[in-house]
Amino acid sequence: MKIKHFLFGRPLSTEALQEERMPKWMALPILSSDALSSVAYGTESILIALVAYGTAARWFSLPVSLVILILLFTLIISYRQVINGYPKGGGAYAVAKENFNPLMALIACAALLVDYTLTVAVSATAGVAAITSAFPNLIPWNVELSVLGVLIVAFINMRGVREAGTVFAFPTYFFIFNIFALLLAGLYQVVVHGIPSTSIPMPAHIPQGVTLYVLLRAFSSGCSALTGVEAISNATPVFRDPTVKNAKTTLLYLGILLFVMFMGITILANLYGVAPSPTGNPTVLSQIASNLFGYSWMYYSTQISTALVLFLATNTAFAGFPLLAAIVAQDGYMPRQFSTRGDRLSLNVGIMVLSLMSILLIIGFDAVTDSLVPLYAIGVFLSFTIAQLGMVKKWRMEKPSGWKSKVFINGLGAIMSFSVVIISLVEKFSAGAWTIAIIIPILVWMMFSIKRHYVSVANQLKMDIDHPLHLKSTLMIVPVGGINQVVRNSIEYALESSPPEQIIAFHVSIDKDEDEKFRGKWQTWNPGIRLETFYSRYRSIKNPLLRFIDQVQRRVDGKYEITVVLPIFITKKTWHRMLHNQAAYFIERALLNREDIIIVKVPFHLKS
Amino acid sequence: MKIKHFLFGRPLSTEALQEERMPKWMALPILSSDALSSVAYGTESILIALVAYGTAARWFSLPVSLVILILLFTLIISYRQVINGYPKGGGAYAVAKENFNPLMALIACAALLVDYTLTVAVSATAGVAAITSAFPNLIPWNVELSVLGVLIVAFINMRGVREAGTVFAFPTYFFIFNIFALLLAGLYQVVVHGIPSTSIPMPAHIPQGVTLYVLLRAFSSGCSALTGVEAISNATPVFRDPTVKNAKTTLLYLGILLFVMFMGITILANLYGVAPSPTGNPTVLSQIASNLFGYSWMYYSTQISTALVLFLATNTAFAGFPLLAAIVAQDGYMPRQFSTRGDRLSLNVGIMVLSLMSILLIIGFDAVTDSLVPLYAIGVFLSFTIAQLGMVKKWRMEKPSGWKSKVFINGLGAIMSFSVVIISLVEKFSAGAWTIAIIIPILVWMMFSIKRHYVSVANQLKMDIDHPLHLKSTLMIVPVGGINQVVRNSIEYALESSPPEQIIAFHVSIDKDEDEKFRGKWQTWNPGIRLETFYSRYRSIKNPLLRFIDQVQRRVDGKYEITVVLPIFITKKTWHRMLHNQAAYFIERALLNREDIIIVKVPFHLKS
Repeated sequence: MKIKHFLFGRPLSTEALQEERMPKWMALPILSSDALSSVAYGTESILIALVAYGTAARWFSLPVSLVILILLFTLIISYRQVINGYPKGGGAYAVAKENFNPLMALIACAALLVDYTLTVAVSATAGVAAITSAFPNLIPWNVELSVLGVLIVAFINMRGVREAGTVFAFPTYFFIFNIFALLLAGLYQVVVHGIPSTSIPMPAHIPQGVTLYVLLRAFSSGCSALTGVEAISNATPVFRDPTVKNAKTTLLYLGILLFVMFMGITILANLYGVAPSPTGNPTVLSQIASNLFGYSWMYYSTQISTALVLFLATNTAFAGFPLLAAIVAQDGYMPRQFSTRGDRLSLNVGIMVLSLMSILLIIGFDAVTDSLVPLYAIGVFLSFTIAQLGMVKKWRMEKPSGWKSKVFINGLGAIMSFSVVIISLVEKFSAGAWTIAIIIPILVWMMFSIKRHYVSVANQLKMDIDHPLHLKSTLMIVPVGGINQVVRNSIEYALESSPPEQIIAFHVSIDKDEDEKFRGKWQTWNPGIRLETFYSRYRSIKNPLLRFIDQVQRRVDGKYEITVVLPIFITKKTWHRMLHNQAAYFIERALLNREDIIIVKVPFHLKS
Repeated sequence: MKIKHFLFGRPLSTEALQEERMPKWMALPILSSDALSSVAYGTESILIALVAYGTAARWFSLPVSLVILILLFTLIISYRQVINGYPKGGGAYAVAKENFNPLMALIACAALLVDYTLTVAVSATAGVAAITSAFPNLIPWNVELSVLGVLIVAFINMRGVREAGTVFAFPTYFFIFNIFALLLAGLYQVVVHGIPSTSIPMPAHIPQGVTLYVLLRAFSSGCSALTGVEAISNATPVFRDPTVKNAKTTLLYLGILLFVMFMGITILANLYGVAPSPTGNPTVLSQIASNLFGYSWMYYSTQISTALVLFLATNTAFAGFPLLAAIVAQDGYMPRQFSTRGDRLSLNVGIMVLSLMSILLIIGFDAVTDSLVPLYAIGVFLSFTIAQLGMVKKWRMEKPSGWKSKVFINGLGAIMSFSVVIISLVEKFSAGAWTIAIIIPILVWMMFSIKRHYVSVANQLKMDIDHPLHLKSTLMIVPVGGINQVVRNSIEYALESSPPEQIIAFHVSIDKDEDEKFRGKWQTWNPGIRLETFYSRYRSIKNPLLRFIDQVQRRVDGKYEITVVLPIFITKKTWHRMLHNQAAYFIERALLNREDIIIVKVPFHLKS
């Protein structure tokens, strides 16, 4: 227990669970690390889809990014309306639950859980890639470093991170600073030295192979950069008053930052003709930074800030997944343990499940960000779609002033989000998206099954208060293995609770001679209780005992409460347990599966 | 249960456990597969020790083998005397137990257990090497095939193999037949075509590097071929009358067979100048066979019979290890479970432990026989030494007619065996023998610890029959999580066993409002029992309950028997269990660690 307290801190009382209100300058970095950090791999994802078709094809990253950024602004406007509609916060699950049947809400929930898991895996591997781009001799430890990163973030979250707010604002600003420095350096180069010779000009005609299909694939890959834009609207209540206004302003700032950073990086990649490395190392961002800064301290600063902000994004998922799981668990669609808060008020089951799943993904995909990206975005945009649809339904029901334009905006958001889902599914089906298409329905089905079970249990446990208590006389069966202190304690307990004529001692011998011998010893001791013995030719103690209990149960036919008193002994040291056959344990397990049998365990504690 | 019976057969009654008496022709192959099969790797082990010093060095395999065979005859004569002394059988453990203190017996036991484990690992890998020498495309599956082989033999032994006696005689005769065919083919070649040009002649002077140290290493490696010669004397009672005479004759036959086969293979290896392959594949025996038979059916027959007899040797260890463990367990020096016979009368714990340990060895040593051999032989010869010393002591105590020559023979056996132990330890210390030098003392220490524990438990459990039963009144504590059917059942049980004023219901709420609410509901129900409630700010249910129990226990100060009645519910499907927090389970575990608390489990079975 001392070790636990040392590692995780002292337990916190429930009263300590209060939301801390934040000013805009602090909420922005904390809530948008996920969205902003995606620019670290967004441009690279687009370039990977184009790289096979020659240098000229890479120019198309510019128009593709532009389309993605148009989509971004549609989403920003839509989500500003979500803030209006749900000032108390509410992700896709809450919106869908209020406006649709549970099916819709659970689809949103499954999509989000999958997405949070992928956020952890993608961000952790991309964060490690930022580090190994700068320090290539760490490349062989990609997987280990990514897993270690996840474990550290999980550990911090299990300790409970509430107090660390200001600390967490720092990496995002550090990252923003570095990216803007990069963009300014690029601007300076162009202004002073002109367009670099490496720059890819707009091709005169579309290069061979660059079909609409290819461009759509590049688009759907790049959409991974938009994940996380919903975070601010989900967390509206953390803003200081005027809450809604502050949240909306912050969301707009996020949109502008994301636009400038993403577009800027794509333009720089084009100016320096950067091609993504087949191994994903060094990253596109690292190549740009080394072109502009050389291997100066500014380069290392860029790489380290990238890694930091990506691990902060991981942390965002570690806040989101357990909280969503807890809410859904309270609604009865996930195992109840997800809603239990640990000593430090953290939702440990959710944290552990998320760590486990994302670590499996990291190991399974060998910590290669680019192979994880095809799975990504589908879940996010599916939840976007459902949230926007929910808003459309809400406006049409409530009909507030100007509801028609509100319906139009959210409807547009829904259509565009759903288009991304469809494009991603089609374009990347064989690259891994099919797994998502299977996992989400399975999760939804599981959640319904869980709910069904909980409802059924509640019905079975329901008790009629007016029904009077029904007391029976107890009949006690005491399996006795020998005549010793443990057995004496058990017999004493039986005699304390029942009259002697309602107690039967039962002995199984696996040796013919022993049977007679035991009867003799019992007679000598004579505790005043009837003894039944059985010679087991098949050497099993459990089976004859169970058969005997069955017989007794049939004979008394519900008129007596049947209780089995198990003498057990508890060893002093754990390894001693291996030295005793666990007969009592197996008997207990078998008895628990039989109806209407009460089990009494009379422990005897060995002193050494 | 049906699957279990299908795989392992129906349970057998204890009466079926009888020794079957065997004629010599059947006992020989069954008891000596271990010894005879060692010729498959014995010569190779010697050659490996010499191969680094040039072709001429390999000639020394001839004198080294001759020395080993002299040792063999000393052992055969010594063990014929063991048969005389222990006509009821008795391995090194039994002999040492009768003639020395337990320490000696336990050293012999530990040595034998280690040796049996190595026999399985060495024989299985050598058996697979015989197969992969003939079918090289199986080489990548060396480890998997060896493990599979061990699992199959383990499975057969768990089914109980008694009835398969005659079947088991076949592979040994098949192997003997093939080796003799090989020797005759070699003889024919020499007689008809003269000494082959590949033959290594006796070198005129000792080649550089071939020191006494090297020759001793070759000798100690070759001694692995002598493992298993003790098997016949251990199993004397299985022979038909006249038991002693038959056993002694069979042992002599074994000695002659082993001599001819081992020496013959070494001579053939020399005639064909065979060098061991660095990877251990193809084996020396396979090289000889392919030289003489070409890749004809006789070659494949030789390889297959070698593999079969080696797996039969594995089977010998699977008979020996569990039986020895069972005997030692009955003496209290090993966990009792080793002496429990399963449904099929097989000693399953021993079989499983042996499989596990040998599989770990196979995996750890990558299924390379030659790297396992340095660990081998030390254990065997240590047990030989102890057995022979025991015989010396026995003759000196009993002084039968001719006891002086008997003492001389067994004394010589002891000295020679002990020399092999020392030579092997010194020569192969760094090659792995050090592990054996560590493991055997650790095993002995563990066995003494186990015995100490059993003696201590027996003393603690001892009961004074004349001491009258001491009955107390029970005080029942019922933790109640809500008002439902499970709780009702528990309260009913409590009321059936104790008067209402001796029952306390205890409720922990993790929510301040809930506390009051629960008290109200309880009042409405009014089961006539006192309710205590507690608001847990740290959300733990277990800790407040345990503290409450401690308080009660302190207050009643041993005047009442304290019983905790745990309402539990049993889910219908196993996966449902994951949907409920296992609070009752953790409470029970904590209670079992507290003294003087009786635990009652009142199960409620969910129907769906």
